[in-house]
Amino acid sequence: MPSGASPTSPADQATVRRLNQALLMRSLVEGGPRSRARLAEDSGLNKATVSSIVTSLQGLGLVEEGESAHRGPGRPGKVVRLTTDSVRFLGLEVNVGYVAGIAVDLTGAVRARARVALPADTGATRGLAVVADLARRLVAESGATPAGVRSLHLSIPGLVDTATGVLDFAPNLGWRDVDVAHILRGRLGWWSAAIAVDNDANLGAMAEYAVGAGAGSPHLLYLSGEVGVGGGSVVDGRIARGSHGFAGEVGHMPIGPRDLRCGCGRFGCWETVVGLSMLLALVGHDSDDGPADLKTVVTGLRDRAAQGDPAVLSALEEQGRWLGIGLSVLANVLDPETIVLGGHFPLLAEYLTGPMHAELDGRLLAPRGRTPRILFSTLGFDAACLGGAHAGRELLIADPGGTREPSPSE
Amino acid sequence: MPSGASPTSPADQATVRRLNQALLMRSLVEGGPRSRARLAEDSGLNKATVSSIVTSLQGLGLVEEGESAHRGPGRPGKVVRLTTDSVRFLGLEVNVGYVAGIAVDLTGAVRARARVALPADTGATRGLAVVADLARRLVAESGATPAGVRSLHLSIPGLVDTATGVLDFAPNLGWRDVDVAHILRGRLGWWSAAIAVDNDANLGAMAEYAVGAGAGSPHLLYLSGEVGVGGGSVVDGRIARGSHGFAGEVGHMPIGPRDLRCGCGRFGCWETVVGLSMLLALVGHDSDDGPADLKTVVTGLRDRAAQGDPAVLSALEEQGRWLGIGLSVLANVLDPETIVLGGHFPLLAEYLTGPMHAELDGRLLAPRGRTPRILFSTLGFDAACLGGAHAGRELLIADPGGTREPSPSE
Repeated sequence: MPSGASPTSPADQATVRRLNQALLMRSLVEGGPRSRARLAEDSGLNKATVSSIVTSLQGLGLVEEGESAHRGPGRPGKVVRLTTDSVRFLGLEVNVGYVAGIAVDLTGAVRARARVALPADTGATRGLAVVADLARRLVAESGATPAGVRSLHLSIPGLVDTATGVLDFAPNLGWRDVDVAHILRGRLGWWSAAIAVDNDANLGAMAEYAVGAGAGSPHLLYLSGEVGVGGGSVVDGRIARGSHGFAGEVGHMPIGPRDLRCGCGRFGCWETVVGLSMLLALVGHDSDDGPADLKTVVTGLRDRAAQGDPAVLSALEEQGRWLGIGLSVLANVLDPETIVLGGHFPLLAEYLTGPMHAELDGRLLAPRGRTPRILFSTLGFDAACLGGAHAGRELLIADPGGTREPSPSE
Repeated sequence: MPSGASPTSPADQATVRRLNQALLMRSLVEGGPRSRARLAEDSGLNKATVSSIVTSLQGLGLVEEGESAHRGPGRPGKVVRLTTDSVRFLGLEVNVGYVAGIAVDLTGAVRARARVALPADTGATRGLAVVADLARRLVAESGATPAGVRSLHLSIPGLVDTATGVLDFAPNLGWRDVDVAHILRGRLGWWSAAIAVDNDANLGAMAEYAVGAGAGSPHLLYLSGEVGVGGGSVVDGRIARGSHGFAGEVGHMPIGPRDLRCGCGRFGCWETVVGLSMLLALVGHDSDDGPADLKTVVTGLRDRAAQGDPAVLSALEEQGRWLGIGLSVLANVLDPETIVLGGHFPLLAEYLTGPMHAELDGRLLAPRGRTPRILFSTLGFDAACLGGAHAGRELLIADPGGTREPSPSE
């Protein structure tokens, strides 16, 4: 029985087919190419059903049959495998100073990766034109055509209404009230693709769930750390966005020192002490300078810590402490299985870990052994692009025959 | 297509039947008794399917057919309705000073209500014997037999592992490591019933979702306010417990004044300023006095506020302010559609509301119109019992033919 609320529409043979399509897709994703007989055995479906579902998945362009590599005695048999030559899922990110993107195929393999500079103060119209151009380039460079694109997820650092694809406000880009999804649809067409907009923390969480440190965790919380700090959750394979799509605004919890003013105008916000600003100020870098390569700056900080610079070491200890205090709030309220720290945190992990646990461990209310594991991301600064691509891929795997976006002319 | 992760077992005709049973049950719950023809029309199922599902629900003892009250021209027809004479869902609560309980039927009507005193320092063994006795009494007084009991949910003020039904620690009862569900199963038998243990905030949230101020809200956060303050969430009709069952521990967020020591030993916990202790101290009531009737004490506070007592008025303004600050954290992190304030908050609502919104509204990060609505509970101090009963009822409605607990001898 599927979990969740009561069904709202009648179930019939089509329901059964969709559930079994999803079951077989998941089996192929997790277990790799296999014969029909083996698929029947592994999935619990009978052979006739497997054959029928394989045929329907072939019709959707998602699987193909071919000879297996010969690995044992006897003659090679036919195996069913996920197609890799046409279906693509795109993840793009627009951020201060750049647009980046990734294309993955149905197996999750990265087939293209690209990045272009975006001059400071680029407006939304010009910025989204750059996004659309980069999307076209990713498709071509990945050896596919627009007809094979099943999803495009764009990450924007701001408040996004994910249900409508409208950006409310992205303070660091200066974009306000932008109908992002419709603009991209209008520029690209691509009626075979779902087009969605989300924030970097939600998509970072999806990347960690799909291919990162918290892979497969049933309840993962991701913390995106840069100048601002945001949270994203994936629960049972789906991004948990709250009821209006705005969940995960963790950066402004008023738990910090009450004399530090935040970019939002208030005092005591968590991100004043766990975001990058405090560390950047320490090395004389003003975050208003614009598109610095954060990785270079943070690596510089780490080098100074390694050389024993007392100011940097003390700032990192302070940040670790505040990290532990804030994570205790999130762990006690949300009870995730896994918390993954992204953004600048992994580069500084060796200096943050000790003070973080010193504050965190004593504040967790769940019994020992049932508290979240805390991991540092290994995906680097382009987690949002990876997550965008995998968000679309996960949706397709969970419902391979799900409704396409209808073209207005259909 | 059901939401959630991929299915993990093959779907077949039995899956279709279970989904359609749930659809028809939900239709009966929400739309009341109707003819088979009308049920087919309202649910979208064809008449043959409705007849077959009605027969299966009759077999499960959940629906019955009878004459309708004659309300129009022509002769009265047969209507399908939920049974009310045998099926029962129990919600019980053990707390400092008392054990209380409620029995509801399939329509959600309360069929019995009872309460007994529990002397201070009663141990777990004796306390759970009282719980079992009260459960038996509720079944008898509700006009049913143990065979009709489908669920028993017990609320305990402490850290509960809901997956196993084991209480980790209930500080105010002094109970530690108690195998609650198995003890109740051992005392009662009742193999037709699911037996579960949960905390008062989770069950309060379920009560608000089922019959309270936030009825039907897709994402509801409930705040249980007494001496301690806890949070519970219901998302899409189910209690959201986090990955280990410990979500909702909101009382110890370190956002309060740093000079106030909490019962947990730390400083600055939210519940030191929004829990009852501060208010009780003001009227010379020591919360260690034991089983005071909190309603009487809080009503006394309200009367003093109504008479213009400056100390009480200033304490309530202070509490309202802190309430707003903490709710902003929860609203920004969780993005619920509805927040319901329970426990002592509703009795003091007129004094808390103004200062609460003065702090809260400016701290919400979601755009105007997409922020949570804040409501005060109308269910009184026994929300946990109601929620326990409805938690079991909701599970049955969502999967009427779901697996029963097998008797060890089956």
